[in-house]
Amino acid sequence: MGISKPAAERLSQLARLLEQRDAATSITSSELERITGWPSHTIRKDISALSGATEISTTSGYDPKRLAAAIREALGFTNEPTRCCVVGLGRIGSSFLDYEGFAGTTFDLCAGFDSNVNRIEILKANFPLYPAFKMKDVIPRLGITAAILCVPSEQAQQTADKLIESGIVGLVNFTPTILSVPQAIEVENVSIIDALGSLTARLAAKKTR
Amino acid sequence: MGISKPAAERLSQLARLLEQRDAATSITSSELERITGWPSHTIRKDISALSGATEISTTSGYDPKRLAAAIREALGFTNEPTRCCVVGLGRIGSSFLDYEGFAGTTFDLCAGFDSNVNRIEILKANFPLYPAFKMKDVIPRLGITAAILCVPSEQAQQTADKLIESGIVGLVNFTPTILSVPQAIEVENVSIIDALGSLTARLAAKKTR
Repeated sequence: MGISKPAAERLSQLARLLEQRDAATSITSSELERITGWPSHTIRKDISALSGATEISTTSGYDPKRLAAAIREALGFTNEPTRCCVVGLGRIGSSFLDYEGFAGTTFDLCAGFDSNVNRIEILKANFPLYPAFKMKDVIPRLGITAAILCVPSEQAQQTADKLIESGIVGLVNFTPTILSVPQAIEVENVSIIDALGSLTARLAAKKTR
Repeated sequence: MGISKPAAERLSQLARLLEQRDAATSITSSELERITGWPSHTIRKDISALSGATEISTTSGYDPKRLAAAIREALGFTNEPTRCCVVGLGRIGSSFLDYEGFAGTTFDLCAGFDSNVNRIEILKANFPLYPAFKMKDVIPRLGITAAILCVPSEQAQQTADKLIESGIVGLVNFTPTILSVPQAIEVENVSIIDALGSLTARLAAKKTR
């Protein structure tokens, strides 16, 4: 199932877009191009690679429900939710404690960790918060497989190592540190500098065209 | 200069990685594979597409200074910094006010905006914060071309529209809203749900291999 990283990112966004729209109205690739800015041929290619692609297309466009379901399947979103934790509850980390975007997704944010016990007692969350030294106990017990890493940069690698020892297989890395992880582990880096870099590169490429 | 989005993201991370290391020691593609997890042939391909690629390679690996310079050139990072602003100073937006990751980059975060005037008065920043209604005045005056969008989801589209009217050409979108923008504008979406989605898709693909 060789789905490329950019295709996976587009499909994930497409699924979110479909959730934001009226689910009864079909949508064409031209409309999707207008909304997303991606070329319609790229969108058609992404969708035609999904299983059940023929049933997704109707005479008036794509059936949004079928398209969303096919995307979920392609991205490996089973009915079983992926249990996640957030590690490091500073400004960025704590912003996930009341983030409503998880509703309706297959991601279940169910624990938070911080090395500062005072911080844990002050912060409010819909799920339990633990001192960092409990990771090795809590993560396997709650069946958590993914972690959102928001600790200070200088603690990033050692915290990642501890998370992996505790059973984490996927890391969303909000720190600027480039993590070194075993082959079986996947890391998704989220960096404002990389985002601005990618933006600037695309704007520069537009100018030279 | 058709540099693909994933290649641009890898190169941007590579530049950050080189900054974190001892600049005098050359580095091989195998070492980079070990650190980043990207296949070494992908790394070699990315680097060989850079201008001056022959001078970057030495007998003991890549020259880090030349590599970093070639990446900056390829990504369109001129000596002139890209001036940026952050719009919406809630938890995520305000986390950029004291973020140290901008140091040494070509991005100059030089203004913040929020519709809540009280919030602006309370928050501390190394650059001026303005009420949102001043965007049309401040953005052209300071030569700001990129904006980091952190407003509540329901205000995302109208705020993006106002930013574009004020002269913004690049948007890093931290809201879950899929923005509709003119062709000349570039958007980079940063979403924890998409990051987790991409992670899950890659882990699922690994399992089926």
